[in-house]
Amino acid sequence: MDNDYKQDELVVEGRNAVAESFKAGKTVDKLFVLEGCKDGPLNSIIRQAKKKGTVINFVPREKLDQISKTGKHQGVIAILAAFDYAELDDVLAKAKEKGEDPFIFILDNIEDPHNLGAIIRTANLCGAHGVVIPKRRATGLTATVAKASAGAIYHTPVVKVTNISATIEELKNKGLWFVCADMDGESMYKLDMKGPIALVIGNEGSGVSRLVKEKCDFVASIPIKGDIDSLNASVACGVLAFEIVRQRMQA
Amino acid sequence: MDNDYKQDELVVEGRNAVAESFKAGKTVDKLFVLEGCKDGPLNSIIRQAKKKGTVINFVPREKLDQISKTGKHQGVIAILAAFDYAELDDVLAKAKEKGEDPFIFILDNIEDPHNLGAIIRTANLCGAHGVVIPKRRATGLTATVAKASAGAIYHTPVVKVTNISATIEELKNKGLWFVCADMDGESMYKLDMKGPIALVIGNEGSGVSRLVKEKCDFVASIPIKGDIDSLNASVACGVLAFEIVRQRMQA
Repeated sequence: MDNDYKQDELVVEGRNAVAESFKAGKTVDKLFVLEGCKDGPLNSIIRQAKKKGTVINFVPREKLDQISKTGKHQGVIAILAAFDYAELDDVLAKAKEKGEDPFIFILDNIEDPHNLGAIIRTANLCGAHGVVIPKRRATGLTATVAKASAGAIYHTPVVKVTNISATIEELKNKGLWFVCADMDGESMYKLDMKGPIALVIGNEGSGVSRLVKEKCDFVASIPIKGDIDSLNASVACGVLAFEIVRQRMQA
Repeated sequence: MDNDYKQDELVVEGRNAVAESFKAGKTVDKLFVLEGCKDGPLNSIIRQAKKKGTVINFVPREKLDQISKTGKHQGVIAILAAFDYAELDDVLAKAKEKGEDPFIFILDNIEDPHNLGAIIRTANLCGAHGVVIPKRRATGLTATVAKASAGAIYHTPVVKVTNISATIEELKNKGLWFVCADMDGESMYKLDMKGPIALVIGNEGSGVSRLVKEKCDFVASIPIKGDIDSLNASVACGVLAFEIVRQRMQA
């Protein structure tokens, strides 16, 4: 991730520059602040960040030095989003406008920007109306993600939410069904995945988190054989997404 | 790719070291030689490389400097394979041993090591018996590929061939059918992809090359909608591979 920041050139460093980013209304994906550091200008930046709901990470100096490109971070670094995020309502509106049942991807902590880019690309091509990602831990919309998405990021709305579980509840109230991918689930061919649906894809290493999995209506598995555990996250997402497409084509 | 070499630490530099790699029977993926440079020790290395069928690239000094990690390449750099390649017969034997129709992936110039790793991972999990890659241009079995394969590289044989078209002919004589992925093909749901089959996946940017496409029995397309051109190569490979799995399950 740090290397990713370095490539992306959306790292803003130093008190004035970071304060200006907030004033200019830029979307700050993450804020890194030197732990224990609490003077006036920094406190003002932290207040701004809290007001906007930005994730704030208090970290040791070594971490800041590692992320820094100029070496002059003055105890604060902001990572800007390369692209603007959408709202959940925009995604639902898009489905309605097309006269289609909502079809949404929910990503429960995808960390690799190449995977996130490939998944947004898949979302666009399988006709999903949007992608939901969490604010914390997961990768945001960096330039690497944009490149890996092959331009899909300009067409498919990406929504960043504080709490995936709360978003699932909200969407359930709007009539969506939730299917998550997990190797111990029911074969995807046996599930009925037509109708308004959200496909939940878990983290590359740890899969779908327990709390999120419990909220899902179905757990779908891809019929694998072989010697290793699981498919790459973006490949698994693609296989499931197109099984949903296949079922919808038959509907 | 050059950055990939640097991470992998399988770059061998200098005349003695490179000559020793050949003597020790290491698999040299690619050899880079300073263009115009033709003294005795270098000629001896070039002879060894030709004998083993290694791809030799004659390049300007800047290219060598760029790949070099030590800065002391003396006009020659060898990139070693992180893993051993298999033979095509090993792949066919594996299918026979399992009592299954052969199912092989043919990769027509995958360049991104993350894609190659993800594809080998998919091959393992969809029950394919092996993966064929070309010697030239495409990425080989580097440490990055091994990591992205999540260990699949230890189980699924990877064969490196000089000429993909010749390999297709050879496999056709053994009764395999060839299906390549391309957006202008027939919907994959309408094709019969049961039986002995090879799935041909093209380059990330340019797709399947014309000569290879002409040798294929079917051109299969994934039913996409959306605003951009194509899926990520490893995602497209996964979607098609599991459509083949689905059809085989019904057989």
